[in-house]
Amino acid sequence: MTTVSIVNVTSYTGSELLRLLAQHPYFEVTSVTGRSMVGKRLEEIFPFLRAGIPLLEGKRPAINPSLIITEEPAQTDLSFVCLPHAAAAEAVVKLLQRGTKVVDLSADFRLRDVAIYEEWYKHVHPAPALLETAVYGLCETYREHIPQTNLIANPGCHTTTSILGLSPAFAAGIVNPDVIIDSKTGISGGGRNPNPNYHFPEADEDLSAYGLSGHRHMPEIAQELTAVAVQGGHPFATDLRITFVPHLIPMTRGILATCYADLKSDENGALPTTAEVRTLYENYYKNEPFVHVVDQSPHTKWTYGSNHCFIYPIVDQRAKRLIVVSCLDNLVKGASGQAIQNANLLYGLPETTGLAALGIHP
Amino acid sequence: MTTVSIVNVTSYTGSELLRLLAQHPYFEVTSVTGRSMVGKRLEEIFPFLRAGIPLLEGKRPAINPSLIITEEPAQTDLSFVCLPHAAAAEAVVKLLQRGTKVVDLSADFRLRDVAIYEEWYKHVHPAPALLETAVYGLCETYREHIPQTNLIANPGCHTTTSILGLSPAFAAGIVNPDVIIDSKTGISGGGRNPNPNYHFPEADEDLSAYGLSGHRHMPEIAQELTAVAVQGGHPFATDLRITFVPHLIPMTRGILATCYADLKSDENGALPTTAEVRTLYENYYKNEPFVHVVDQSPHTKWTYGSNHCFIYPIVDQRAKRLIVVSCLDNLVKGASGQAIQNANLLYGLPETTGLAALGIHP
Amino acid sequence: MTTVSIVNVTSYTGSELLRLLAQHPYFEVTSVTGRSMVGKRLEEIFPFLRAGIPLLEGKRPAINPSLIITEEPAQTDLSFVCLPHAAAAEAVVKLLQRGTKVVDLSADFRLRDVAIYEEWYKHVHPAPALLETAVYGLCETYREHIPQTNLIANPGCHTTTSILGLSPAFAAGIVNPDVIIDSKTGISGGGRNPNPNYHFPEADEDLSAYGLSGHRHMPEIAQELTAVAVQGGHPFATDLRITFVPHLIPMTRGILATCYADLKSDENGALPTTAEVRTLYENYYKNEPFVHVVDQSPHTKWTYGSNHCFIYPIVDQRAKRLIVVSCLDNLVKGASGQAIQNANLLYGLPETTGLAALGIHP
Amino acid sequence: MTTVSIVNVTSYTGSELLRLLAQHPYFEVTSVTGRSMVGKRLEEIFPFLRAGIPLLEGKRPAINPSLIITEEPAQTDLSFVCLPHAAAAEAVVKLLQRGTKVVDLSADFRLRDVAIYEEWYKHVHPAPALLETAVYGLCETYREHIPQTNLIANPGCHTTTSILGLSPAFAAGIVNPDVIIDSKTGISGGGRNPNPNYHFPEADEDLSAYGLSGHRHMPEIAQELTAVAVQGGHPFATDLRITFVPHLIPMTRGILATCYADLKSDENGALPTTAEVRTLYENYYKNEPFVHVVDQSPHTKWTYGSNHCFIYPIVDQRAKRLIVVSCLDNLVKGASGQAIQNANLLYGLPETTGLAALGIHP
Repeated sequence: MTTVSIVNVTSYTGSELLRLLAQHPYFEVTSVTGRSMVGKRLEEIFPFLRAGIPLLEGKRPAINPSLIITEEPAQTDLSFVCLPHAAAAEAVVKLLQRGTKVVDLSADFRLRDVAIYEEWYKHVHPAPALLETAVYGLCETYREHIPQTNLIANPGCHTTTSILGLSPAFAAGIVNPDVIIDSKTGISGGGRNPNPNYHFPEADEDLSAYGLSGHRHMPEIAQELTAVAVQGGHPFATDLRITFVPHLIPMTRGILATCYADLKSDENGALPTTAEVRTLYENYYKNEPFVHVVDQSPHTKWTYGSNHCFIYPIVDQRAKRLIVVSCLDNLVKGASGQAIQNANLLYGLPETTGLAALGIHP
Repeated sequence: MTTVSIVNVTSYTGSELLRLLAQHPYFEVTSVTGRSMVGKRLEEIFPFLRAGIPLLEGKRPAINPSLIITEEPAQTDLSFVCLPHAAAAEAVVKLLQRGTKVVDLSADFRLRDVAIYEEWYKHVHPAPALLETAVYGLCETYREHIPQTNLIANPGCHTTTSILGLSPAFAAGIVNPDVIIDSKTGISGGGRNPNPNYHFPEADEDLSAYGLSGHRHMPEIAQELTAVAVQGGHPFATDLRITFVPHLIPMTRGILATCYADLKSDENGALPTTAEVRTLYENYYKNEPFVHVVDQSPHTKWTYGSNHCFIYPIVDQRAKRLIVVSCLDNLVKGASGQAIQNANLLYGLPETTGLAALGIHP
Repeated sequence: MTTVSIVNVTSYTGSELLRLLAQHPYFEVTSVTGRSMVGKRLEEIFPFLRAGIPLLEGKRPAINPSLIITEEPAQTDLSFVCLPHAAAAEAVVKLLQRGTKVVDLSADFRLRDVAIYEEWYKHVHPAPALLETAVYGLCETYREHIPQTNLIANPGCHTTTSILGLSPAFAAGIVNPDVIIDSKTGISGGGRNPNPNYHFPEADEDLSAYGLSGHRHMPEIAQELTAVAVQGGHPFATDLRITFVPHLIPMTRGILATCYADLKSDENGALPTTAEVRTLYENYYKNEPFVHVVDQSPHTKWTYGSNHCFIYPIVDQRAKRLIVVSCLDNLVKGASGQAIQNANLLYGLPETTGLAALGIHP
Repeated sequence: MTTVSIVNVTSYTGSELLRLLAQHPYFEVTSVTGRSMVGKRLEEIFPFLRAGIPLLEGKRPAINPSLIITEEPAQTDLSFVCLPHAAAAEAVVKLLQRGTKVVDLSADFRLRDVAIYEEWYKHVHPAPALLETAVYGLCETYREHIPQTNLIANPGCHTTTSILGLSPAFAAGIVNPDVIIDSKTGISGGGRNPNPNYHFPEADEDLSAYGLSGHRHMPEIAQELTAVAVQGGHPFATDLRITFVPHLIPMTRGILATCYADLKSDENGALPTTAEVRTLYENYYKNEPFVHVVDQSPHTKWTYGSNHCFIYPIVDQRAKRLIVVSCLDNLVKGASGQAIQNANLLYGLPETTGLAALGIHP
């Protein structure tokens, strides 16, 4: 059994880890922290945990709902860090020093270039040296590298959705680096702290765009699409031009990115067909347990509570664009499920361990 | 491995069985029927099934998304029947004749008195002889009887919620048989067929009562509360007076019943306290894996996608009433999860097999 | 033109007054207060006000979106006070002293008995002397008294819904004073302050009861049902036994009370029929512009954004109970619309002035 | 008083006309049709109409809830046609022949080129001769032409939102004709007929794109942006390249388009700033009563139930794009409110008559 701590368990990514790890046969949560709730039992914060029952009878208890929240994590083999950026890096440094492997769900170790980090996050990076050892935890791209590190930078929900949606096209070099990503997220993506924008009467039956003057996910998407393009042998001939606009949707879970990219035409001016692009996508993801290329417009509801991602590419012949719709559950494949997928890889477990649930329908 | 068929898989209770059985290690779905969709593959109707992955690596495939929907069920050990009443009874007769055990999710075998059935359902019962062998599948009450039958009448969502909420009080004889049940259900309880009342723009941001001139769940609740009272040694001194009013709530899943019952006072005119009643409830359910007596007002969200039920009893000293709030997921503990719980009992499996998931939060 | 101030305009009842008064031809909002937003223009807080356009061309401007929020109200003819209880009473005293008429939307002047107020609100009443001059602002009951006061205690949403639903039955003496009110409200009833219970991811797709250990609306309902019974010549022979349980529904606006009352039978043991009760209700409300007795189960959506109330009485012959479903928009007829209706009466205007809007459908 | 008929009143655009015209002092609805509901009274279909009360006392009745639905419209001065395309054109021909002026809410007379209509709508146009006399009813662009016709082609919700959002930029020639419109609509846009996609349990908590293989609104947007560009003296130097993708949002009302357009740079390679673009937009719409250029990301909720449109332009300097967020209520400014605005112009009334309501908040 691998012991696990969850740092800042009172966040939504923290409670989602609890929910998912309750189904995991090899990771045992033995320590949870949460500054504002020190001394409380888990079930006081998350009453749904009271229902915890043994996963496989006679085997082991699932999550212990009476676990006491502490200020600092106890020693464990592995830690999931659910703190905001900057605070996360500081916690990570300490955990690594005592030999704990870390999956960090914050943005602190996602950008490889410290200058870009400091430009977008407006503060000095607390541990720039670690950027070299950290591996970007998009399992579909970095599956080989993940087992070799002790620090995984778990990607966020907008970026996972967008990068999975565009990677096959960039790897194959069929599009120009001229991209618009119109991303739409459920409100749990904004976290567990009440806030006027997330107050039910304001957010319900409402729709709006945010982050229009520049969103931190943009440089992360740029970094990874560039990497995929280089890896695929199709480095960009021109500068990468990305517009990324997130939107808030009146629903709790689910994220969907509609990605628009300039299609290259061949020497005869012909564009690839939708069928050709779909085949290319299917091949790219053919061995992936969690990424599914589909032939109809996917619904976020297909992914509700699961670690799955559905991707639908289509060619707009008139406007010479590739359109890709990509969707997943922001708290699972977009956060805590992916973190467990990373941890599975880190410990040599089958990647799908503890993540077998289908989306809840309806 | 026990082979399983799902009759009328295209209903919500049918698809929920698929979702839950995908996590079940002993039941294998080998046949699915659905009159309007004969010849289609499951994944064409339920795209979320495409994401099916092996449950435990190397063990067995989960639900097969390519299973073809047929008109009649193939021979299996067990069958879950998800047809509307009357049609269900006819299918059940045939299944039993060929030696298949049946969990029937319809209302056809829930009422023990054929006259009451015919009064409320307005048609001749298709198989009255079977009423004697059928066992009412509320596991918490009939756990001992379930393994001894081949036909389980799985209770519905409103009735499960109400009966679980009131049983301890009736078993202990602390209330008079004078009860009001104000039940509130999410819209998936109305089934998968589009209908003006369930059309999103009509049902969203709306709230209404229905079935006000008499609802079929009333006699079923009456039957079971009477049985519990008799079993507890507290048969009713007066006629049972139940008012049951269901309401439609603008949410997909979840059901919550607020139950109001006349409290008996002792010879000194004293009423039991909330603490006393809570202790009584906790004792009644102390060994139940899925029923949880809590000390705060429960939320349907605690149960989302899970087989758990939360119950909160409180005494209104001023009005001399017991108030009990009881809630669960109408498609799980209120239908398909309970059906699997019943099937586990039928096959001598641990009752929680395949039902370990916690509620999804948020 | 009557000048109007809104005290604590930054509440939902405050902004709803702005929205409704923008259609009112005789009241002009000239002063708005809001402690946390002093110095801001209205449109900074409520951007939807920027769309203000002249109501009737060439006549007068509607709400001025550039009005500056102040700490104290300027001198006006009339003031709507939207403060929480206790704070409201203090503001009311000052306003009355300077000769301003007041419609108080708080609970401070609703209970006529100061002892009951202090029992339920747990503090000393700041202005008990005013309880004698205050009139309870349920226009349907106190239409005659309202023009004769300078202080109207505007009823709240739960109480308006329940009292309108039960008044005809109590006035006619057809029920015993044995009542259960199961009330269900949209989340805007909880006000504009963010709060974990009203955080979208928590409140969405969720349902719960609250106030189970006793809710402040109970004594107010008791007071008014007693008054109606006495007025109708049917004072209670036994103590009034009311259970009132409010529930939070995942929608923004709308409130629906399902009221259950013990029906009296005549000397032959016969109960009134549904048709007889409906006729009685129709007669009771036949001249009311905003209260509509209907012959089908009403939907809160019928009232969305309007000042209308729909009431549906039905007899449960089996259980000898009267069931009444009553619904309205909690922010309009349940708060700010009713406040304007009261103000219209106060100034001798037609009661419906500025309140002609129909419910928004769908 | 101008007499008005509503053809196919049982649609959502039909019932919205009823709701809005109940506040209109000059138009009187005297005839309503609806094939499936012939012989019924309006209030049987739309119970919220029972609440109809005189608009201004002593003046005139508002909508008559007892009006009988007929198969064919009676003779009136004006008719609003709410039929689907093709059926609409046939009804329009007949109405014009008997001298009735028509506001047609269908797509039949929006495209000026019959060949484009037949390509996208896949049938022969029933009345191509009328295309010459029809005026496209976007009041902000065609205000001068509208009073001179007897047939107005009322624009739809996606197109109104997009065209209003992009017109100032095209009129000023600051962008290239290279545009992506990512449009997001509430579900009432799909009409009043139940349908699996709009079934509450399927549509709630779900998000998806549709019409990905080409949507009929695209050519309409192309036509109008071209017209605006020509009118502004900036005809396109290259072909118009539009990608339009609509999305279904789990809410009832509201539409928001996020528009992305290639910004032209000046001879020095400089792009306009956000401030410059905003000034340009403000000037373009400075006299418009219903279009508001704002300096923060707008919310659909600001427009709920009102005829207002909010527009927010911003420059993405990095990617050299103009981003414009534009939103309105799809059933009001996107359909029935705009139809009344057109009718006001047609009859020389102030354009805002009957349309003064602010958005409902929250």
